Amino acid sequence: MDFRTQIINASAESYEKFLPHISVDTVIFGFNQGTLKILLLKMNYNKEWFLPGGYVGKNEDTDEAVKRVLYERSGVKDIFLEEFAVFGNPQRNQQSFADFPDTLWNKQRFISIGYYALVNYTYVIPQPDALSETCQWVDFKDVASLAITMDHRNIIDKALQVLRERLSYKPIGYNLLPDKFTLPDLQRLYETVLGKKLNRGNFYRKMKNMAILEKLDEQRKGGAHKAPDLYKFNQDIYNSILKEGANTW
Amino acid sequence: MDFRTQIINASAESYEKFLPHISVDTVIFGFNQGTLKILLLKMNYNKEWFLPGGYVGKNEDTDEAVKRVLYERSGVKDIFLEEFAVFGNPQRNQQSFADFPDTLWNKQRFISIGYYALVNYTYVIPQPDALSETCQWVDFKDVASLAITMDHRNIIDKALQVLRERLSYKPIGYNLLPDKFTLPDLQRLYETVLGKKLNRGNFYRKMKNMAILEKLDEQRKGGAHKAPDLYKFNQDIYNSILKEGANTW
Repeated sequence: MDFRTQIINASAESYEKFLPHISVDTVIFGFNQGTLKILLLKMNYNKEWFLPGGYVGKNEDTDEAVKRVLYERSGVKDIFLEEFAVFGNPQRNQQSFADFPDTLWNKQRFISIGYYALVNYTYVIPQPDALSETCQWVDFKDVASLAITMDHRNIIDKALQVLRERLSYKPIGYNLLPDKFTLPDLQRLYETVLGKKLNRGNFYRKMKNMAILEKLDEQRKGGAHKAPDLYKFNQDIYNSILKEGANTW
Repeated sequence: MDFRTQIINASAESYEKFLPHISVDTVIFGFNQGTLKILLLKMNYNKEWFLPGGYVGKNEDTDEAVKRVLYERSGVKDIFLEEFAVFGNPQRNQQSFADFPDTLWNKQRFISIGYYALVNYTYVIPQPDALSETCQWVDFKDVASLAITMDHRNIIDKALQVLRERLSYKPIGYNLLPDKFTLPDLQRLYETVLGKKLNRGNFYRKMKNMAILEKLDEQRKGGAHKAPDLYKFNQDIYNSILKEGANTW
């Protein structure tokens, strides 16, 4: 079956299964060896890159829809995710699928609900969907040079902006770091997401104030320097701050 | 025309004008004499209270739709508003309009996009819509005792929770206070929204660090105590923090 026929068949199925005019798009962040990555797919048909996304089943909760999309693309359940913005410009997908009939599902207007997800890079097994030639991690810094579909570049930029803002009152790290990590590991993660160097003293103080860290009775062996202490997150406090926000007043 | 006929006529018009299955709901916060208020409507037909809301025109941007709804209900343009959550449970409006045909617009499934707005109480002229007997400010503390439709109580609670979280990195006050105000006025606003007392010294320090305040060469006259200094917001810094978030790292 050629790509064009695949798309037309998928369109008919989508009309059957999903609510019209609503989509979800997910910006899935991972972290590996000091590099921020996002998960992208590349479309068979026009070779454009796009975000993992999908539609909401006629009787499906939107939260369940986005979890399903994440699971289908990453093989991971229970991913940390948050809704961050709605993209509702009526022209946002006007240029796409220009050589298909106007009745094509994909050519309709979609208001897209944007979610970002933070996942442990090593747990993810990227899965292309039926219309894609690949689904893979891309270094965040390389996104600028890719051909990206519709307004997905804007969605990615907005996700990072909101994640940076929310860092001030919600912790990150649990889904991005291994179970045991050093304070420099954690600082590196924050610096990577924020895109700037942080003062070590201030960073440690802020983390200590949030009370989310537990120092383990272990050090990381093998470096040239004094072995650094290992930490883990206090899951109860971490989750309570995630839910309620840090009390910063 | 009776209420029932009005609703059926509005339904037909909605099918013509709007995208199906998507709605917007707005939690409009105002502040007056130390009291947090929200704008609510009361439906003619079943006497339930509900949030100002509406639908997205077939060719209308979602941001424009919510601005239109706000303007129609409050008479105010350029309101500060932010999207805060999406409410997409397929059962969320299952109980409503039970004695109408299933084809009624209002009985369809709607995924609602929630926005909160902060407005200057004195600028607002509440306007009921065609299906409401009133549109009015309600003290936030009285909301608990009202009969509220569908999941709108949940939407209100979530709006306040998110507003409280965002206070840690985004200023509020410009849209809620008069142009000139004292530091105790501002602290009172924060305490009202946060629902707790704040330490005066910490509060003043945090405000000073944000650099959003300009001290005026005026005092408020007429009190029994020493006349307190008046302040206004530095609009440039205020707007830049609103847009970018406070740099808290």
